[in-house]
Amino acid sequence: MGHLDSIASPRDLRGLSAEQLDELAAEIRDLMIRTVATNTGHLGPNLGVVELTLAIHRVFDSPYDRVVFDTGHQSYVHKLVTGRHADFGTLRKEGGVSGYPSQAESEHDIVENSHASTSLSYADGLAKAYAIRGEDRHVVAVIGDGALTGGMAWEALNNIAIARSSRLVIVVNDNERSYTPTIGGLATALTSLRTNPRYEQVLDLVKKRLNQVPGVGHAAYDALHAVKKGMKDALAPQGLFEDLGLKYVGPVDGHDQAAMEHALTQAKRFGGPVIVHAITRKGQGYDPAMRHEADQFHAPGPFDVQTGAEKPKGKIWTDHFSEAIVELGERRDDIVAITAAMMHPVGLDVFAQRFPERTFDVGIAEQHAVTSAAGLAMGGLHPVFAVYATFLNRAFDQVLMDVALHRCGVTFVLDRSGVTGDDGASHNGMWDMSILQVVPGLRLAAPRDVTRLRELLDEAVLVDDAPTVVRFPKGPPPTDVPAIDRAGNADVLVREGAHDVLIVAVGSMCTTAVEVASRLTAQGIGVTVVDPRWVKPVDPAIVELAREHRLVVSVEDNGRVGGCGAALLQTLNDEGVRTPFRLHGIPQEFLDHAKRDVILARIGLDAQTLARGIVEDVTALDGEPASIEVDHTA
Amino acid sequence: MGHLDSIASPRDLRGLSAEQLDELAAEIRDLMIRTVATNTGHLGPNLGVVELTLAIHRVFDSPYDRVVFDTGHQSYVHKLVTGRHADFGTLRKEGGVSGYPSQAESEHDIVENSHASTSLSYADGLAKAYAIRGEDRHVVAVIGDGALTGGMAWEALNNIAIARSSRLVIVVNDNERSYTPTIGGLATALTSLRTNPRYEQVLDLVKKRLNQVPGVGHAAYDALHAVKKGMKDALAPQGLFEDLGLKYVGPVDGHDQAAMEHALTQAKRFGGPVIVHAITRKGQGYDPAMRHEADQFHAPGPFDVQTGAEKPKGKIWTDHFSEAIVELGERRDDIVAITAAMMHPVGLDVFAQRFPERTFDVGIAEQHAVTSAAGLAMGGLHPVFAVYATFLNRAFDQVLMDVALHRCGVTFVLDRSGVTGDDGASHNGMWDMSILQVVPGLRLAAPRDVTRLRELLDEAVLVDDAPTVVRFPKGPPPTDVPAIDRAGNADVLVREGAHDVLIVAVGSMCTTAVEVASRLTAQGIGVTVVDPRWVKPVDPAIVELAREHRLVVSVEDNGRVGGCGAALLQTLNDEGVRTPFRLHGIPQEFLDHAKRDVILARIGLDAQTLARGIVEDVTALDGEPASIEVDHTA
Repeated sequence: MGHLDSIASPRDLRGLSAEQLDELAAEIRDLMIRTVATNTGHLGPNLGVVELTLAIHRVFDSPYDRVVFDTGHQSYVHKLVTGRHADFGTLRKEGGVSGYPSQAESEHDIVENSHASTSLSYADGLAKAYAIRGEDRHVVAVIGDGALTGGMAWEALNNIAIARSSRLVIVVNDNERSYTPTIGGLATALTSLRTNPRYEQVLDLVKKRLNQVPGVGHAAYDALHAVKKGMKDALAPQGLFEDLGLKYVGPVDGHDQAAMEHALTQAKRFGGPVIVHAITRKGQGYDPAMRHEADQFHAPGPFDVQTGAEKPKGKIWTDHFSEAIVELGERRDDIVAITAAMMHPVGLDVFAQRFPERTFDVGIAEQHAVTSAAGLAMGGLHPVFAVYATFLNRAFDQVLMDVALHRCGVTFVLDRSGVTGDDGASHNGMWDMSILQVVPGLRLAAPRDVTRLRELLDEAVLVDDAPTVVRFPKGPPPTDVPAIDRAGNADVLVREGAHDVLIVAVGSMCTTAVEVASRLTAQGIGVTVVDPRWVKPVDPAIVELAREHRLVVSVEDNGRVGGCGAALLQTLNDEGVRTPFRLHGIPQEFLDHAKRDVILARIGLDAQTLARGIVEDVTALDGEPASIEVDHTA
Repeated sequence: MGHLDSIASPRDLRGLSAEQLDELAAEIRDLMIRTVATNTGHLGPNLGVVELTLAIHRVFDSPYDRVVFDTGHQSYVHKLVTGRHADFGTLRKEGGVSGYPSQAESEHDIVENSHASTSLSYADGLAKAYAIRGEDRHVVAVIGDGALTGGMAWEALNNIAIARSSRLVIVVNDNERSYTPTIGGLATALTSLRTNPRYEQVLDLVKKRLNQVPGVGHAAYDALHAVKKGMKDALAPQGLFEDLGLKYVGPVDGHDQAAMEHALTQAKRFGGPVIVHAITRKGQGYDPAMRHEADQFHAPGPFDVQTGAEKPKGKIWTDHFSEAIVELGERRDDIVAITAAMMHPVGLDVFAQRFPERTFDVGIAEQHAVTSAAGLAMGGLHPVFAVYATFLNRAFDQVLMDVALHRCGVTFVLDRSGVTGDDGASHNGMWDMSILQVVPGLRLAAPRDVTRLRELLDEAVLVDDAPTVVRFPKGPPPTDVPAIDRAGNADVLVREGAHDVLIVAVGSMCTTAVEVASRLTAQGIGVTVVDPRWVKPVDPAIVELAREHRLVVSVEDNGRVGGCGAALLQTLNDEGVRTPFRLHGIPQEFLDHAKRDVILARIGLDAQTLARGIVEDVTALDGEPASIEVDHTA
C-alpha cells in the first residue's frame, strides 16, 4: 500500500515530508505507466508534470483556487490527487475516467476542451471575475511552451499584462516540445531564458542549502535567506515577457519539488499576474519514454511496461495518406505540405524527410497554417494542410475569408474526422462537413477506402482555383468497396431490385451502407447505394437518382445539423424533388468518450439499427403493415 | 492639374523630386478628404499612411514585388498611385472602386479580406513561395499596431522569425490605435521602442543632413555616410522583436518621406525578414480628423470638408443596444461587457463610461474575447460580447469548445449581421446563423425591431447555462411591427384569410414579410406571418403552423445554406411535415459591394420579388394556371 490511498483530496498532500513526496511521485509514475500501457492515453506529458502538479496542489487550495490545464491531456497527476486514483484503471474506457478534465468527474476540474492555447484566456476571465466579486481566490494556468505558439495565448498574455489586480499564476511547462520540438522565434526566446546563468546559480544554491537541512519542507525554505534572495532577484520581468510588462519567476527545475513549491509560493504572494517558468522533461522517470526520439511516448499505443516496446499496429488511414502525399510530392514539385505541430500524427513525417524545403511546421497555429497556405498558393504553389478535423474549426474564418474569398488552390486533409471516441467531446471531428458547407467554391471529398483516398487526393490537388478538402476517419481503413457504376462524379456501390431505397453514404459509412443493403435485399427491398465521393457541391446525378426512388436515406459520420444530408435535402427541396428523406448522422450534441465502434452503435450508425429504421420507413410508405417481415433479431 | 494625373503606375513616382512628392501627398490627402466627405469610407487610417505608401511604391517594384495591406481599409493611397485616381469618385459605390483591395480592380491588389491581423501570414506564404521558386521578389506587409494584438499576427511572427531566406519587409504602422488606443502589454512594449532615444537622434541627424542637400532624392541618401551609419546601428534586433530573433529598423517618422524611403531601402537590402517600425498619426494633415478624439475620423459619416462637421445621423440599431446594455448593467451587477477593439462601433462606449471596471477591451482578439468570456462566466458573471457578426467567425471554435461545451452563460451580440453592403464581401454578416446552428445548446435570437431587441436581450442574459446570441443588422431599425398573437415563443404578425402561405420571417426580414403579406392578401391569398424571435432551437409551434398551411416560405438575411430556413426544413422533414417549402436567403456566394438595399433587391430579398415568387409557387400548387392574377407591375 502506497501513499495514494491516503490522498482523498489535495489537502492531504500537505502533511507529506520531502521523502514521502518523492515516494508518492514514483508511485504516481508507476500507476500511470501501467495504466496507459494497456488503456492507451497520454503518457510522456503526464510523466513530465508530476512534481509540478504536486507543487501546485500543495501551494494552492483547489477547488477554491482554480487550476486550468491547457490542452488537458496532462491532467492525470491532478486526477490522481483529487480523488480519482481508485478508478484510474478505467481511464478512457466507456463510463470510466476521462483522459481530460471533466466537470462531471470532479469539482477540481474546469476546462474540458482539448484544443490548445486556451488556458490563459479562461484564467484571465476567471481571475477578473474573482477580482470583480472581491474574492481572493487564485487562478493557476498550466501551459506548455508548444501551446504558447498559438495565437490565442498571445492575445491572452497581451491582456493579462495589464490586468494588475488578477491573482493569476501562469506556469509555463517548458519541455521544448509540442508533439515534437517547439518551433519558431518563441523557441529561440525560451532557449535564451532557459540558458540564463541565473538558472543554474539559483538551483545550485537551493540544492546546496537543502543538503544542509534535514527533512526540508515548505516552511524551511522561507528561512533560507540566501535562497529567498536568489529567487527574489528572479522575480523580475525578463526577455520576452519583460516587453509585455509581465512578472517572471524562473527558470525553475520542474522536477525539483521543493524548488517548484518555492517559486509558486513567491508567485502566489505577488498578488498580480506572474509567470513561473518551469523546465521539465517529457517522459521523465521512464527510460523507454525518455529514449523515445519521435515524441517521448506522447500518446503511445499499448506497450510492454518493462521494455517499452509498443505492440505492432496495423496500417491506419494516416499511413496511406502519408504514402500518397510523398508520391504526389515526387510527381509535382509545386506541392508543399503544412502541419500545425503534428508532423507525425498527421503522417507528414516522411514527406518532411523527403522534401524538407517544401514542408512547414508552423507550431500550434492553425490560423497561420491556413492563411500562409493562401499566400503560398498566391505565390504559385499548391499547399496541402494536413490537420485533425476538429482543429480546423480554429481556422474557419481563414478558410472562408483568406483561402476561399481569393479562390486559392489549397487542399485541406482532415484526419480523425467523424467520431474519434477515446479522447472525448472536443476531439470528435463531427463539425467540418457542416460548417464547410457555407464556404463558396469549396469542394469536399470523403473517400470510402484507401483506393478512393488516393484517387480523391489526386483530384483535389488538381484544383487550382478553389479550396478542396479530403476527410477521413481515425483508425484502420476498411477493405476496398468496389464501384459497379458511375453516376455523375458518384460511385454506385449497390443496385439491387426495384427503386425502393436510395442510400447516399458518405465516406466511412459506405462500408456500413453496403451491409445495410444486403440486409434490405434479403427482405425483398430494392436498394441502390451511392457514394458521392465529392459531397460538396451536391452532384446533380444524385438529385436524379433521388427522383427515381421511393425513399432517400443519407448516412454520414458528421453532425446531423447542416451536414451532407442536410445539404442534399435542401438541394432536393430547391429542385422540387419530394421523395421522402431520412437523414442519419451524429446527434448534434457533445459525445462522451468511448471507442469509436461503441459510440457509432450507441447513436444508431451501425448496420443493424440503420437497416431496421429503413425497413420501418419503407413499411410506413406502403401505408399498411409491411408484407416484409422485419428481422428484429438481425 | 496636379501630379496624380501623371501617375499611371507606381513607377511614375520615381521621377518626382522631394518637393513634388510633398505636393503629391497634399493632393492625395485633398482628394481623399473630398471623396470620403460625400461617399463615406475610411479616412483617418488613409491620411496616416500617405508618405509611407508612397515610400513603399518608390522603393519596391509592385506588382513584381507584392504589397499586402492588413485589414485593407488603408489602401486608398495605394489605389490612387496604381491607376485608379480617375475613378476614385466612385469609391464604395455599386460597380465603383472598392473600399478594400480588389484583385478584379488591379494587379497591384492581393488581399481582399478586411479581417485584421492576416497580412503577416499571407506575406510569409508568398515570400516562402518565391524562395522555393527561386524568384527574387520582395513581399511588403503593412500592419497596424492594433492588428498586432491579434493572435494570428503572433503566430506569423513566430514563423517569420525563422524564415531566413524570405525577402519579407514588415512595415509596422504604429499610430497607437486600433479604432481607439491599442491596449495591452504590446502597447507598452511599442511605447518603449517608440521612446527609444535613438529615434530622435537618428531623425535629427537625417533632417540636419537633408537640409544641407538641395533636392535630396533616393540616391543622395546613400551618400550620406553618417545617416547610413545611424540607421545601420538601428538595423539590429530590439525589444519585443529581438526576443523572437527578428531584425528591426526604426522607429522611423512615418510622415517623413525621405526617412521612410531610407529605412525601407535598408530593409530591402537585408535579404531576410525585417521589421520597419514607422510612427504615424491617424488623420495626419486634416485638422478636424486630428482633433477628433474618439477615433480620428476612422470611418466618418458624410461630413463638411471645411469644418469637419459630420451630418447628423439618425439612431441606428447599435444606439438602441447601447442604451439597453447600460440599463441591464444598472439592474444587474453581474453583467460585464467585452469588445474586441471596437468600443464605439459596437456601442459599448456608454457602458464603459458608466461601468469601467466591468468593461474589457481585449484588442483585436476575438478568440480571447470569447474564451475569457467563458472564464468570466465560470467565475460567476454574465459576459456580453458585442462584435460585428462577420468577426465572430474568428472565434467559432471558442464559441463551440470553450463556451458551449462548458454550458457557459455568455451572450453574443452580433451587430452588422446580414448584408452590410458598402464594405464588401468580407464585412457581410451572412454566415453566423448557419455555422452557429451546429453548436449544441446555443440559442439564437433575431429581433425584428428595437422593442424586440430589448425584450430578447433581456431573455438572453437570463440564460445562465448556455450561450445565447442576439443578432441585428446595420443601419436604422424599422418602425416597430406589433404582434397580434403568440405561438410558442414566436410572434404572429399577420393572420389573414385561408391557411395558404406561412411566412417564417427572421429578424430584419419581418418588415419585408408584412409588406409581402399585404400584397398576397390583396390577391386573395391567405397568409400567416410569424417571427420565431428565437430562431434556434426551432420552435415546435412553428412546426405545427407549417403542418396547417399549404406552403411554407422562410426568409432570412443570412446565407441560404444551412441557415434558419435549412434548420426548419430539416426539422419539418424529421417530424414528417411534408408541406411544400420555399427557402429565401442570401445566395451562398461572396457579394460585391453596394448599398444594403441595393443588394437585397439584387438578390431577391425585397417585398416585390418575394411576393411574385410566392404567387407563382401558390399557382403551381393549385396545379393549374392561377385564377389569381399576378401583379407584375407591383
